[in-house]
Amino acid sequence: MHVKWFLTHDGGFMARVIDLTRTIEAKMPVFPGDPEVDFFSHHTHEATGYCVSRFAMGTHTGTHIDVPLHKIASGMPVDEIPLERMMGRAVIADLRDLKKNEEISIKHLEAWENELKDCSILILKTGWSEHFGRDDFFCGFNGISQEAAEWLSRKKLSMVGLESPSVHPVTHQRIHQIFLKSNVLVVETLCNLESVKQTTVQFFALPLKLKGLDGSPIRAFAVEE
Amino acid sequence: MHVKWFLTHDGGFMARVIDLTRTIEAKMPVFPGDPEVDFFSHHTHEATGYCVSRFAMGTHTGTHIDVPLHKIASGMPVDEIPLERMMGRAVIADLRDLKKNEEISIKHLEAWENELKDCSILILKTGWSEHFGRDDFFCGFNGISQEAAEWLSRKKLSMVGLESPSVHPVTHQRIHQIFLKSNVLVVETLCNLESVKQTTVQFFALPLKLKGLDGSPIRAFAVEE
Repeated sequence: MHVKWFLTHDGGFMARVIDLTRTIEAKMPVFPGDPEVDFFSHHTHEATGYCVSRFAMGTHTGTHIDVPLHKIASGMPVDEIPLERMMGRAVIADLRDLKKNEEISIKHLEAWENELKDCSILILKTGWSEHFGRDDFFCGFNGISQEAAEWLSRKKLSMVGLESPSVHPVTHQRIHQIFLKSNVLVVETLCNLESVKQTTVQFFALPLKLKGLDGSPIRAFAVEE
Repeated sequence: MHVKWFLTHDGGFMARVIDLTRTIEAKMPVFPGDPEVDFFSHHTHEATGYCVSRFAMGTHTGTHIDVPLHKIASGMPVDEIPLERMMGRAVIADLRDLKKNEEISIKHLEAWENELKDCSILILKTGWSEHFGRDDFFCGFNGISQEAAEWLSRKKLSMVGLESPSVHPVTHQRIHQIFLKSNVLVVETLCNLESVKQTTVQFFALPLKLKGLDGSPIRAFAVEE
């Protein structure tokens, strides 16, 4: 089978690639209590003829993935998750009509049940990424209700993707546990979803292969055909 | 166009995804003079109910990408490279018959010229990844000759991918400059190429979106159809 849409990177490229990743920069906002992001110059063009930098950050910085070890002591670390789990056909559920602080419940998700049959990933387009950098980004978002999290876990999804920095502003511990115990990976702090026009896309969430760690910043993108 | 091979992540998945990324771990071997890799525990299950780690490393750790800023002070940083540049159809050139220290010359590459016409990426399968962790990994590999680097740059490739940690064990400064001045991105320290059976594949090299930096560790993989 010849997949034309990845034939070449320019003229012959027959798909639209949409970057859904927030840029990582020193001292960017991070989840309260998480490590800061630091960049350091290591080799410079002047001194060595080439530039090498050092960077330090937390595993849940910017656009990132939560894997079972994040919440479960015996859970799988990020380097052991097969790559196939972190890509696949995704539904982009438009939930931008939700009120501030309204919980995402089963009734909001049922509208997308038909599309979900052919997909392994659900992405909740709430518009929350607009709040990045504001005071309320880490606390005022639409959380996923316990019933909705359980409903999604029963669907045996591979991943759930969010614009918010967590799954719930209050009961995040409980909701994380529901997803990660069911082996549903959670992608947080997606951005640029307003550029996605299709209801279903190919979605990729590629973490660093960090041995034994509980998550990783990712490069996330959608491909529209 | 309905791309079946990414329909679902399990039963319906009609392609083979091959991870070409070396696992990143604390104190792993790095290019001489580069920053060490460090992992730190930050939040623990016992103390906070969830696990978050901090990690620090150089921009050229493990399987990574070199972008123009690595060698050219006014060159493009990694966060500004469009994602389309870091994926596409690739030729896997089998060069495992080369002798130790033999330079990769135009004559070795000309055999793949026909396949390259439909591809934007060239990957040199030299078998060198077997040497990772041995004393000679950073110094004994097959370098790309100046003429071969210029020949490849004239092909206007998007990327060149290597199993070795650099483009040449001796004249790496000069060879990097040829590629990066021509805007050919360089991927280094690929592994697991022996698992790739096809001559052409879809290749992906996804870096972190690190603002203003000179490269990044990547998640690299091939998709066979």
